[in-house]
Amino acid sequence: MLGRRPGGWKTAAMAQDGTSGTSGANGTLADLGEFGLIGRITDGLPPSPAVPVGPGDDAAVVVAADGRVVITCDMLVEGRHFRRDWSTPADVGRKAAAASLADIAAMGATATALVVGFGAPADLPAAWAVACTAGLREEAASAGAALVGGDVVEAPQVVVSVTALGDLAGRPPVLRSGARPGDTVALAGRLGWSAAGLALLSRAFRSPRVLVEAHRFPQPPYAAGPLAASGGATSMVDVSDGLIADAGHIAAASGVRVALDSSALEVGEPLMAAAAAFNVDPLVWVLGGGEDHALLATFPAGAALPEGFVVVGRVEEAVADGPAVTVDGNAWSGPAGHVHFG
Amino acid sequence: MLGRRPGGWKTAAMAQDGTSGTSGANGTLADLGEFGLIGRITDGLPPSPAVPVGPGDDAAVVVAADGRVVITCDMLVEGRHFRRDWSTPADVGRKAAAASLADIAAMGATATALVVGFGAPADLPAAWAVACTAGLREEAASAGAALVGGDVVEAPQVVVSVTALGDLAGRPPVLRSGARPGDTVALAGRLGWSAAGLALLSRAFRSPRVLVEAHRFPQPPYAAGPLAASGGATSMVDVSDGLIADAGHIAAASGVRVALDSSALEVGEPLMAAAAAFNVDPLVWVLGGGEDHALLATFPAGAALPEGFVVVGRVEEAVADGPAVTVDGNAWSGPAGHVHFG
Repeated sequence: MLGRRPGGWKTAAMAQDGTSGTSGANGTLADLGEFGLIGRITDGLPPSPAVPVGPGDDAAVVVAADGRVVITCDMLVEGRHFRRDWSTPADVGRKAAAASLADIAAMGATATALVVGFGAPADLPAAWAVACTAGLREEAASAGAALVGGDVVEAPQVVVSVTALGDLAGRPPVLRSGARPGDTVALAGRLGWSAAGLALLSRAFRSPRVLVEAHRFPQPPYAAGPLAASGGATSMVDVSDGLIADAGHIAAASGVRVALDSSALEVGEPLMAAAAAFNVDPLVWVLGGGEDHALLATFPAGAALPEGFVVVGRVEEAVADGPAVTVDGNAWSGPAGHVHFG
Repeated sequence: MLGRRPGGWKTAAMAQDGTSGTSGANGTLADLGEFGLIGRITDGLPPSPAVPVGPGDDAAVVVAADGRVVITCDMLVEGRHFRRDWSTPADVGRKAAAASLADIAAMGATATALVVGFGAPADLPAAWAVACTAGLREEAASAGAALVGGDVVEAPQVVVSVTALGDLAGRPPVLRSGARPGDTVALAGRLGWSAAGLALLSRAFRSPRVLVEAHRFPQPPYAAGPLAASGGATSMVDVSDGLIADAGHIAAASGVRVALDSSALEVGEPLMAAAAAFNVDPLVWVLGGGEDHALLATFPAGAALPEGFVVVGRVEEAVADGPAVTVDGNAWSGPAGHVHFG
C-alpha cells in the first residue's frame, strides 16, 4: 500500500525501460502508468541554456545568473481550489502555475523555471493529466519559465503543487515591508473578475464568458513585476487573497496604513453587468475577491508609474487601533478575503 | 467552497493581523487558523546569509553562489506514502524532506533550502501539523538546508509536497547518464531496511525497532553525494524505488549494463533477524526495497572511493535484448521496485 516515489522525472526514453505500460492517452492513469505519464508530460520540452539539466534525472539544474534565486510554492486541491466539472484540465494547470508565477512577479523577479508535484487517482483519464500539465507548461511559457521537473504520485483526488523559481537580474527584491507614508499605491491587473466568475458558476451561469474564464484561470500581469522593481517600487504583493487582505499584508509588514480610493478602482463592464444581474455591489468583488493575481505596489510620491500601473490610493502613517486599510477614508466592512481553516 | 491561497508564508507577526485565530496548538487546524499555523511553522527560523529573504513575503530569496541551482520535488500522500497510525508527525515531516534532500545529494550537490506545500483536513490536530513541519525542519537542518517558505491549504487528507534546492559549488552535476563500461559501481547507505520495516508494520510487529524506524523515516547519506562528485563519480542516483529499479535508471540513461555482486551487498543483522522470522530471503528487500535513499554511484575503475562508499558491482557493455541489470551475472527475477499507477 505504501508507494515509493521516483527521485525525479524520468525522460520519455525512460518510459521504454519496461517498468510500465506505454499505452496512449486514451485510458486511465493506471493504463498509462507512472513513467508513461511522465514521458507524456515532458515530451517535447525544448532544451534551453537557462536549464543545463532538465527533466529526467534526480533533479534539474537551472541557471541563477545573479547568484540568487527567488522561490515560492502553491498547492491546489480538487474540490477546494477547482472542480473538474467547472474547469478544463488545461485551466487547472494554468491556474496552478499562475499562482506561483504571480508570486515571483510580486518580488520584482522574472520566472525562470517550475517543478510540479502531481497527485491523482489511478482511474483519472490519462488525457486529463496530460492536458493539465500542458496547460501548466503553456502558462509557464507565457511568463518566460520552463517546466524542469516534478513528481507523480497516486492520491484520492487531484492535487497540483507548483514551485516556481525567479531571477532578480541584480535588483533587490521588492518586499512587503518597504512602503512609507506618502508613497503612491498603484495596481496592475484585474480585480474581482475571478470572484464574479465564481459567483456565476455557483449559480450555474456560464456567462459573461470573460468572467467565468477569469475564475477558471487568472491572467496575472507578469511583466509588471520586474517593471515595478526597475521603476523604484518600495513594496509589492500579488493580490491572491483579496485587495483588502493583501493591502493589509503590506500595511502590517511596513507598519503603515494603506488608504484606497474606490473611485480609482476600475470596475469593468462585465463586472457591472454581473453585479446588476445579482443585485450586488461590484465593489465587494473588487475589494474582497482573490485569485486574480493583480499586482499591488507602492512607489515614491511623484514617481512615474511603470506601464500597466494605475494609482489607487496612498500610504499613510499607521494609526493605533485604527484600520490597517481604509476605503475612501473608512474601514471596510465587507468580506476581506479567504483564509484557510478559518 | 473554492478557497484562495496565500501568496507565500506570512511571518508570525502577520498572524496577529486579525484574519485568523491565534489560539494555541491544542485544538484543530480550524481552531488555529491558516496564519496561526504558518506562524507556528516558521517560529524561530534563524536568519541566515544564505537566505536573504526567508518566510513572510510572496516568495523567498536564496543564495545560489555558483550561478546555478539544483531543484527537485517529491509529494507524499497520507494512506499512500505514510499512515498516521504508523508514523509520528515528525517522522512524516522527516520522510518528506529526506526524499527531496536525497535527490539533491544524488546530483552531487549540497542542499541549501526547501519549501513545503502542506495540505490537511480542518479537523487535523494543530499539534500534528506543527510537529510534522518541525520534523521537516529538523531533517533539512541535518542536511544543511533551511525551510524558507511554503503554502498551507485545506485538503481531505494530509499531503506534504517538498521542493528542495541545492548548490553544486562549481562542480558539474553528476547525472545518471555518465556511467561507462569498466566503471566501478559503489553504494553509500542502507538498503532494504525500509522495506523490512514495512513488512514488520504490516504484520503489526513493532520490532526490530531499527527497521520500523527505518521505514518511518530514512537516513540518507547526504554528505556522500558531494563527496562522490568531488571524487570523480561518473553517474549517481538515489535509491528511492529499489536497487534493481534505480540501477536500471543508470543503465538506461548511460546505455550500459549494471552488474551487481550480491555478496558485496551488506545484509545487516536486523535484516537477517527479520528475514529469518518471516522465512524470506533478505536479498529481496535489499534488491527490491525502496525508500532508504542510499546513493548508488559509478566511478572510474581503480579510483579511490570516497568515504562511505563500498564496491557492489561493475559497469558492463549493454547487451541487446539482455537485462539492463544483473545480479551475480543473471537477470533478477524478484520484485524490482514500486511504480505508481502500475
